[in-house]
Amino acid sequence: MPAHGRVPKYYAVKARILDEIAVLGIGSPLPPERDLAARYGVARSTVRQAISELIIEGRLTAQQGRGTFVARPKLIHPLSLASYTEALRAMGIEPGRRLVTLETIPADDELADALEIAAEAPVIQLERVLLAGGEPLGLETTYLPAQRYPRLLDVFDPSGSLYRCMQDQLGVVWAEATERIETALASPREALLLQTNPALPMLLMQRVSRDPAGTPIERVRSLYRGDRIGFEARLVAGR
Amino acid sequence: MPAHGRVPKYYAVKARILDEIAVLGIGSPLPPERDLAARYGVARSTVRQAISELIIEGRLTAQQGRGTFVARPKLIHPLSLASYTEALRAMGIEPGRRLVTLETIPADDELADALEIAAEAPVIQLERVLLAGGEPLGLETTYLPAQRYPRLLDVFDPSGSLYRCMQDQLGVVWAEATERIETALASPREALLLQTNPALPMLLMQRVSRDPAGTPIERVRSLYRGDRIGFEARLVAGR
Repeated sequence: MPAHGRVPKYYAVKARILDEIAVLGIGSPLPPERDLAARYGVARSTVRQAISELIIEGRLTAQQGRGTFVARPKLIHPLSLASYTEALRAMGIEPGRRLVTLETIPADDELADALEIAAEAPVIQLERVLLAGGEPLGLETTYLPAQRYPRLLDVFDPSGSLYRCMQDQLGVVWAEATERIETALASPREALLLQTNPALPMLLMQRVSRDPAGTPIERVRSLYRGDRIGFEARLVAGR
Repeated sequence: MPAHGRVPKYYAVKARILDEIAVLGIGSPLPPERDLAARYGVARSTVRQAISELIIEGRLTAQQGRGTFVARPKLIHPLSLASYTEALRAMGIEPGRRLVTLETIPADDELADALEIAAEAPVIQLERVLLAGGEPLGLETTYLPAQRYPRLLDVFDPSGSLYRCMQDQLGVVWAEATERIETALASPREALLLQTNPALPMLLMQRVSRDPAGTPIERVRSLYRGDRIGFEARLVAGR
């Protein structure tokens, strides 16, 4: 641990690389590690530590075999009941989804409790990689009470918007949701699906949505790449 | 990278330690690394990797020289305009604050823009460690336009609630706020103040609050320990 007030070398290098990033612009290659080490008069390992933190923070992006580039700014996703599709389109980015799993499973105690159904009752489990402009941004797993939506699997196209389908085809109305946000690590399987490193901090969102009668519609677990996305909430007094 | 469907050894060990945690209960010591390695038939380094991820995730807590213990569950803080003091008291936890910095600085362009004041206008910078039951939970830096609140420094006690003071003593009304949430790494200085490791994922919250006329009251940058706290939002349709 450094003493109070002393800045570790790698951290000073990080600040200098941030200055370079501001000049370079999005998509530009960062100069090679050895050039930066020579320019700053530090060891290559010091430059490497600084770059690795800037990658975790989403300021740089490493492309295998090609080098390190200035990353696009993080997407800022509004926290709301609006679907992922609507939120991304509003930002001018083409949303996409890649189906990983679609199966019916028996509810364990936790799911039964969250969805207010009997233990062992059938639950539709839908797992999809969320894409933004073709790149993996998150992994979303939705659990739906199968007996409440018996026609869902007949009408739903897994590459499209689930919310849109349930609203338009089944007449489901989203009235409210409780969403929990925390940091998490990806499991090795999740990291593989998201084409990311298990050490990279992720944002874990867990939601239960309800209809106007207060009946649970879904339980959702979404794991987002912390280097690519942030969320924004609008808070209003008196609620 | 493991192949699809193959679970790396450390990850299987993590699942077994989670089973132990469920049995042990909060505050119990975890058996020594070498005992777990022998019990699971794996290398000590594999157990160490599993334990290190469980510490990052806030399931275990390492106490220097004393060993590793089962952690308390994360605090879940509601996202709202309510102050930190009120939110923690509602969870039955005694809030506290430790003053780090209280000074008046000239606004840089970004601050001037956020607070809608002239560049170089004086800004009160208040930096405090947020404590929960005596332990550091976050580092909060608040920027206030000094000319809008000329009496603030006369009436404010830095160990108390800023919101309460501004409401009661200055008649300031919080009407709304925009809050951005993302993952971040602590700087070495921030890690030191929070008694944490710079590699630990943090939650960064950035807020601008406004009064009923839409005038900015404050800009706040809060860095929370990702292993100790999560946030919960309640979302309602049609807003």
